[in-house]
Amino acid sequence: MSAHDTIVALSTAEGVSGIAVIRLSGTEAIQIADQVFYGKKLIDQNTHTIHFGTIRNNEKQIIDEVLVSLFKEPKSFTTENMVEISCHGSPVIIQEIIKLLIEKGTRLAEPGEFTKRAFLHGRFDLAQAEAVADLINAETNNARQVAINQMRGGFSNEINQLREELIHFASLIELELDFGEEDVEFAKRDDLKALILKIQSYLQKLIQSFDQGNVIKNGVPTVIAGKPNAGKSTLLNVLLNEEKAIVSDIAGTTRDSIEDEIVLGGINFRFIDTAGLRDTKDIIEAMGVERTREKMKKASLIIYMVDLTNTTADEIKKETKDLIELGIPFIKVGNKLDKADAELIDTLRKEDFIFISAKHNEHIEELKEKILSMFQWSSVKTGDVLVTNLRHFEKLSQTKESLDRVLIGLNGSVTGDLLAMDIRQALHYLGEITGTITTDDLLENIFSKFCIGK
Amino acid sequence: MSAHDTIVALSTAEGVSGIAVIRLSGTEAIQIADQVFYGKKLIDQNTHTIHFGTIRNNEKQIIDEVLVSLFKEPKSFTTENMVEISCHGSPVIIQEIIKLLIEKGTRLAEPGEFTKRAFLHGRFDLAQAEAVADLINAETNNARQVAINQMRGGFSNEINQLREELIHFASLIELELDFGEEDVEFAKRDDLKALILKIQSYLQKLIQSFDQGNVIKNGVPTVIAGKPNAGKSTLLNVLLNEEKAIVSDIAGTTRDSIEDEIVLGGINFRFIDTAGLRDTKDIIEAMGVERTREKMKKASLIIYMVDLTNTTADEIKKETKDLIELGIPFIKVGNKLDKADAELIDTLRKEDFIFISAKHNEHIEELKEKILSMFQWSSVKTGDVLVTNLRHFEKLSQTKESLDRVLIGLNGSVTGDLLAMDIRQALHYLGEITGTITTDDLLENIFSKFCIGK
Repeated sequence: MSAHDTIVALSTAEGVSGIAVIRLSGTEAIQIADQVFYGKKLIDQNTHTIHFGTIRNNEKQIIDEVLVSLFKEPKSFTTENMVEISCHGSPVIIQEIIKLLIEKGTRLAEPGEFTKRAFLHGRFDLAQAEAVADLINAETNNARQVAINQMRGGFSNEINQLREELIHFASLIELELDFGEEDVEFAKRDDLKALILKIQSYLQKLIQSFDQGNVIKNGVPTVIAGKPNAGKSTLLNVLLNEEKAIVSDIAGTTRDSIEDEIVLGGINFRFIDTAGLRDTKDIIEAMGVERTREKMKKASLIIYMVDLTNTTADEIKKETKDLIELGIPFIKVGNKLDKADAELIDTLRKEDFIFISAKHNEHIEELKEKILSMFQWSSVKTGDVLVTNLRHFEKLSQTKESLDRVLIGLNGSVTGDLLAMDIRQALHYLGEITGTITTDDLLENIFSKFCIGK
Repeated sequence: MSAHDTIVALSTAEGVSGIAVIRLSGTEAIQIADQVFYGKKLIDQNTHTIHFGTIRNNEKQIIDEVLVSLFKEPKSFTTENMVEISCHGSPVIIQEIIKLLIEKGTRLAEPGEFTKRAFLHGRFDLAQAEAVADLINAETNNARQVAINQMRGGFSNEINQLREELIHFASLIELELDFGEEDVEFAKRDDLKALILKIQSYLQKLIQSFDQGNVIKNGVPTVIAGKPNAGKSTLLNVLLNEEKAIVSDIAGTTRDSIEDEIVLGGINFRFIDTAGLRDTKDIIEAMGVERTREKMKKASLIIYMVDLTNTTADEIKKETKDLIELGIPFIKVGNKLDKADAELIDTLRKEDFIFISAKHNEHIEELKEKILSMFQWSSVKTGDVLVTNLRHFEKLSQTKESLDRVLIGLNGSVTGDLLAMDIRQALHYLGEITGTITTDDLLENIFSKFCIGK
C-alpha cells in the first residue's frame, strides 16, 4: 500500500460526556500516536488490541489518561493503519489532544474522509459508502435497516455482476467492429437481449422501490390544514406526547426532540408550518393565496381538519373540492366529536370522514391507522433492498433508458457501433452508482455531506 | 469478586456522529454481549481485544455493524467485566442496542455508576472519583490539569499515609485508657505533637490552595459595571471575539460557546448580567438599589468602566467610594480614549485608571494583563496539587480544627480520653475526604452529579 498522510478527527458527538473517541488514520498513524502516548510502545503491539496509558504534551505534562485501540493495515475501517484514542469526554481534553496530534504531523480530516479512504482503497463501493452516512442520519428504525442493508452490499453485488456480464457483450460487439466490413457476429443477439431484459427487470424493481425508500429515508411532509381553532395543535400534541412517552422510556438515548416530527409505524411524519393558513379565517380563501398553496404543495399528506361544532356540510364540500384540485393525498378529520351535531356527523360519515376528539384523546388510534394505510407498509428486514438515494434513483433510471435504446436497436437490427454506444452509456451510469466511474466533483459532493470523524 | 448486576449506558455524547460507544459493566457483561453479538464468541477472547461483528435482535435482524472491546475483571475501569460496543453514531441505533441489552438482563446505569463501582471496588478513593467528574467538566486547560492531578492521586496518598500514622497514635492512647488508673504513656506526647504539626502544615498548604483552585475550577464571576453607553458590551465583544478566533482554529472540537464566558490566561471569566445597572442612569443611584448590590456582591471582580467623554472627576470619586465599600476587587477602566478630554485623563492617571478604546480595540492587552495580575497565576503542571472541591475544603478545615484542639490539649496536658476523642474526630473528617468513611447520602450526593455513562 502506498503512503497516505495521517488524518485525525473527533469521531464521537461533541459535548461533555463520559468518554470521547479521537480517530487517526494513515500510514504513520501508529508512529505518531507513539510520540504522544506513554505506557507501551504501540508499534510493537498486535492489531485489535487495547492499551492503557497517558497522553502527554511536549513538556511531558499529562493531558489525560486514555485507552488506545490499534488497527493495523489492512485490518481497519479505512484499510490504513488506524488508532482510536478513547479519552474523557471533555471538550478541553479533546482540543488539547487533537492540537498535539496536529503538531506531530497529522492533519484534521475532512468530512467523511475516513469513509472516502475506505472507498478509495476498495473496502466497499460508492453506494455502500453513501449508506454509511444514511445509517448515521437514520431517524427511524426502518431507515436504519434500509441503510445498513445497503451498507452491507444491498444492490451493489448484483449490479456489479450484471455490469460484468454487460461489459462482456460490449467487448464482443466492439470486437465485431474491428472486423469492419466482414459479417461476423461474436455477440449473440438473443443472449444479449436476454441479459438486457434480466437487467431491466432488476432495475425496474429497484426504481419502483424508490417511492417506499424515499418515504423511509426522508419521511412524509405533512400539513394539518384547517381553520383556526379546529384543534390542529391539540392533535399534534396528542400524537407527539404519546410517541414521546414511548421514546423517553430509555433515558439518555433519545435524540434532541424535534417538536414537529412524529414517528408512526416506522415512518417519520414531518409537519410543515402552515401559519399562513392559521391566520386566515376561511380555509378556502386561504387556499386561494398562492403562498399557502405552495406550502401545501410541498406536503405528501394533508390532514384536513374541521371543527364539527362550527362548520356546515356545504362548506366542507367546497373545501374538499379545493383539496382534490391540489392533487395531494389527504385525510378528512372531524374534530370535537363530543360536542358535534348528530345530523352533521351522519352526513359526513358518507364522506369517508374520521371523527375524533383531540382534546379527549378519542379515536386517535383510528386516525393513526388511517394515516399508515396511506403508506402501505411492513417493517424492513435484513437483506431487503430499497433505493433511498435520489442519485441512485436517477442513475438507475438513466441506465434503464439507455438499455431501452439498446433493446429498440436490437429489435430494429441497428448496426453494432450504435448498439455498443448505448451499452457503453448504460455501463457508465451503472459504474457511477457503484463508483467504478467517479469524478472528483462527485466524490466531493457525496462526502462533504458526511460528518467529520466518519 | 462477588456478583454485580450488569449496567449499560451510552458513554459518548448524544447526537448524530461517526461513532458512539455503549458501555456494559458487571459480572455477566460478556455473557450478555455474547447473546446479541454475532462474529465471535466473546467469552473465549482475551481481555483488551477488539472484535468486529454485528449486533442482532431477537429475530436475528442486524441492528448495526460494530466493534466490541473486551475488558475482563479485574483489568477494567470498574474492575468488573466490561464490554464497550462501538456502533455508528445514530440515536436510533443507540436506542435499539440499549433496548435490546436491557431485554437481555442489563439495566440502565445511574449517573456516575461506573465510577461509583470503581470507587466501591477500591480502584481509587473518593477524592479521586470526584476528580473524574471535574475532569470531564473542566472548562479550561488549567482546570483539566488540576482535575487529572487529583484523579491520579493528588493529595490522596499523602492524606492516607498521615491518617495511618494518626490512627497509630489514637490506638496507643486508647490502649493507655484501658489501663485505667495506672500511669502509663504508650503514645509519646512529643512524637504525637510532631506528627500533628506535620499534618497541620500539610493541611494548611491544601487549605490555602483552595482560593486558587476554586478560581481554576469555577472561574471568576465578573461584572462590567458602568453607566449605559460606557461601552460595556463593546468591551465584552472585543474580549470575546479575540478568544473565539483562537478557539475556532480547530474545527469540530470547541464546545457550545457560552456567549458570556471568556478564558484569559487559563482562567474562566464568567460575566454576570447587570441589566439592572444598565437601566439606571446614575451608577451611584443604581448601587443604592439593593438588588443590583446583591448581583455585584456575587462577583469576584468588577470592571468599573467610565465613558471618558461623559463624566467628571468628582463623579468618579463618588462612584469609586461606593465600590470600595462593596469590598470586591475592582479595576478602573476609562473608555473612549480617542475622544477623551486630555485634562481628565491626566487627573485619572493618578487614580490607577487604565485607558482603552473598546471600539478601536486599543490597549485591550494592557487591560487583560491588569485583570490577570489580580489572580497571580502560572499554568498548572502535572503533579501540582490544588484543592478545588468545596467538600474537600470543608473537611480539611474541620480536620485542622480538630487537630488544633488536640494541640491545645497536649500543651495543657488534658487527659487521654479527651485527646483520643479529638484525634478520632480528625480521623473521621480525613476519612470522609478519601471515602474511607462514607454514607449512602454522601455517595448519592457526589455521584448524582456525574453524567450517565461515566
